[in-house]
Amino acid sequence: MKIIDIREADLPITSPGANAVVDFAGLKTSAVAVVSDCLRGGRPLVGYGFGSIGRWSEGGLLRERFIPRIMAAKPEELLDAAGIVDPMKCAVMAMRNEKPGGHGGRAVALGALDMALWDLVAKLADQPLYRVLADRFNEGRTDPDVAVYAAGGYYNGGAQGLRDEIAGYLDLGYREVKMKVGAVPLAEDMARIEVALAALDHDGGRLAVDANGRFTLEEALAFGHAIAPLGLRWYEEPGDPLDYRLMAVLSESYPGALATGENLFSHQDARNLLRYGGMRADRDILQFDAGLSYGLPDYLRTLAVMDGMGWSRRRLHPHGGHQMSLHIAAGLGLGGNESYPGVFRPLGGFADASRIENGRAILPDAPGIGLELKGPLWRWLRGTFETE
Amino acid sequence: MKIIDIREADLPITSPGANAVVDFAGLKTSAVAVVSDCLRGGRPLVGYGFGSIGRWSEGGLLRERFIPRIMAAKPEELLDAAGIVDPMKCAVMAMRNEKPGGHGGRAVALGALDMALWDLVAKLADQPLYRVLADRFNEGRTDPDVAVYAAGGYYNGGAQGLRDEIAGYLDLGYREVKMKVGAVPLAEDMARIEVALAALDHDGGRLAVDANGRFTLEEALAFGHAIAPLGLRWYEEPGDPLDYRLMAVLSESYPGALATGENLFSHQDARNLLRYGGMRADRDILQFDAGLSYGLPDYLRTLAVMDGMGWSRRRLHPHGGHQMSLHIAAGLGLGGNESYPGVFRPLGGFADASRIENGRAILPDAPGIGLELKGPLWRWLRGTFETE
Repeated sequence: MKIIDIREADLPITSPGANAVVDFAGLKTSAVAVVSDCLRGGRPLVGYGFGSIGRWSEGGLLRERFIPRIMAAKPEELLDAAGIVDPMKCAVMAMRNEKPGGHGGRAVALGALDMALWDLVAKLADQPLYRVLADRFNEGRTDPDVAVYAAGGYYNGGAQGLRDEIAGYLDLGYREVKMKVGAVPLAEDMARIEVALAALDHDGGRLAVDANGRFTLEEALAFGHAIAPLGLRWYEEPGDPLDYRLMAVLSESYPGALATGENLFSHQDARNLLRYGGMRADRDILQFDAGLSYGLPDYLRTLAVMDGMGWSRRRLHPHGGHQMSLHIAAGLGLGGNESYPGVFRPLGGFADASRIENGRAILPDAPGIGLELKGPLWRWLRGTFETE
Repeated sequence: MKIIDIREADLPITSPGANAVVDFAGLKTSAVAVVSDCLRGGRPLVGYGFGSIGRWSEGGLLRERFIPRIMAAKPEELLDAAGIVDPMKCAVMAMRNEKPGGHGGRAVALGALDMALWDLVAKLADQPLYRVLADRFNEGRTDPDVAVYAAGGYYNGGAQGLRDEIAGYLDLGYREVKMKVGAVPLAEDMARIEVALAALDHDGGRLAVDANGRFTLEEALAFGHAIAPLGLRWYEEPGDPLDYRLMAVLSESYPGALATGENLFSHQDARNLLRYGGMRADRDILQFDAGLSYGLPDYLRTLAVMDGMGWSRRRLHPHGGHQMSLHIAAGLGLGGNESYPGVFRPLGGFADASRIENGRAILPDAPGIGLELKGPLWRWLRGTFETE
């Protein structure tokens, strides 16, 4: 087989408003289509991917560096022994002559490209991606469903809006909900948290809070003291994602689960969090997102780092709410995955028909990642890339 | 005053060949021109900048995010109280709605833009940039000259090539030379080092070596043991730039100076190196490069981190060999600066007429950064941006 074309385009995403540090108005990410010379029903088989949610599009990098390097590679530099495209080898070719360190936008761009490559690989195997990943990297073990939580709770709805939003998530089958904090004074956030807890107070509903890296150490400690009695599901990204010491100090006084990792874009950064962040393997949550960190090739290195340091993969609940991470979670035995049922359209949520039951998502059995099963996203991909 | 246009273009750079991890063939960086409505001799005053050497161009980010954000800002969001463009405020506007963490390509793009803004500011003041920086951030204190070392010693010349190269640097007035190591077996590198040391063995010549992040911990230790008796100027970037523990372990056994930091692109990453890397404030060298790390606004935060942790600025010898860092070194009292007298044309080296005397560079007194004093670079900038 042969990759005959790789296309990229900016994909506009609806904004949920602002978190504690960023206004997402006008948000775009990069979408990628990898076109093969393999035919299915007379048409070339195509893999689709996109950059994970919350960072801006990186089309320049894809057009100027990564796509040309892949297209210039020899077949044996991209294919496995069976002659099938190998995303691990593609990642090596894409990263040729890139210096070490500086894990930022290029990790996002390659996350999008890697997603499209795995979609293609799973379609070639006529299997859902989680099955392919389990067979290759997890001794064939898959989870029948994946714990998911509904991420939302932005600042644009007021108390009644928050109540309605949470009721909607519970109706959809979610049991765990995450809301934003840190953009307003502590007392105001505490009032919002009380509203959310009241709305969740049945069927085992639980609440997580996310400060998006806004707090200083002092603010993070004060917020932690305030919420400690509430027994929240977790307290996410209190300070700057690279301030490992803040996490370590906070973990000495905050008794509940802490969560972070979505803004660490490499296994080297993930390793530093585990070395220096004081994270506790019995309770804390790691949110590394393959879609922001070079895709699965580097994510497997992160899993190896975790294994070597005594961390269960069940502590991983990736950021991003995308189907790639859902497949990784089901195929590699992670603890769960984020979900954006109400925001970041057309990327938020999983397949249109996918059910959430008692807080767990059941994966579709369609070949590949299944972006074709999300109507509005699929129409955009098909129309933009003119692949069908 | 008003910024009336910001232009960017890819600037091709000649390659020195390969270091231990990267082949620089086809290297490009981003050049930026900030055009003001202030006239000098009937023409608009323009500030010029470029991305620091060794990373690829980031034109997509400049065109799609950073330039549009600056051009959309209100005048008071970009100007200081005197009505002059303020690079610190421009940096805030450029980074609006960027998430924390993931310090990579965007830090390089903003390094280029920041350089152009400071060039414009100094030209408006009719002063060399180092004088402006000293007045604003260093109580007016400047250094009359700056220690510089000649970086080269790539793998493309053989023993005689290395001898000739070093003799050339000594003829130019350099006393310290850096060569690449780590791409070949230890014994072969040791033979190259002996050649270089012999070539430097007069006039106080000293040799530094740079592994460009290639070594594992075991290899870094073995290399350190091998070179320890040689008393080299420093041993640079032995392992991955984010592997702080490797540096900490190596510092326990390697008695001489260690150097690193060029691949840390934010003050948060720099702080982690100082917190966790075991770097010794009495001897080790920090090579953070403003041109790769959001420019001067974030560099000043790095200087504040260093001050707070008891580090003298004299331990700083920035990577990149560009005139922006040369001005920062002279204006803010750093220890020195890299120089590429023979490679990475047209960026390598400083002003055409600038002299190196006994290993120190004397800065020109022209207004701004002085890119106009580098003939081939200036011809390229002027022709590409059609500013003159």
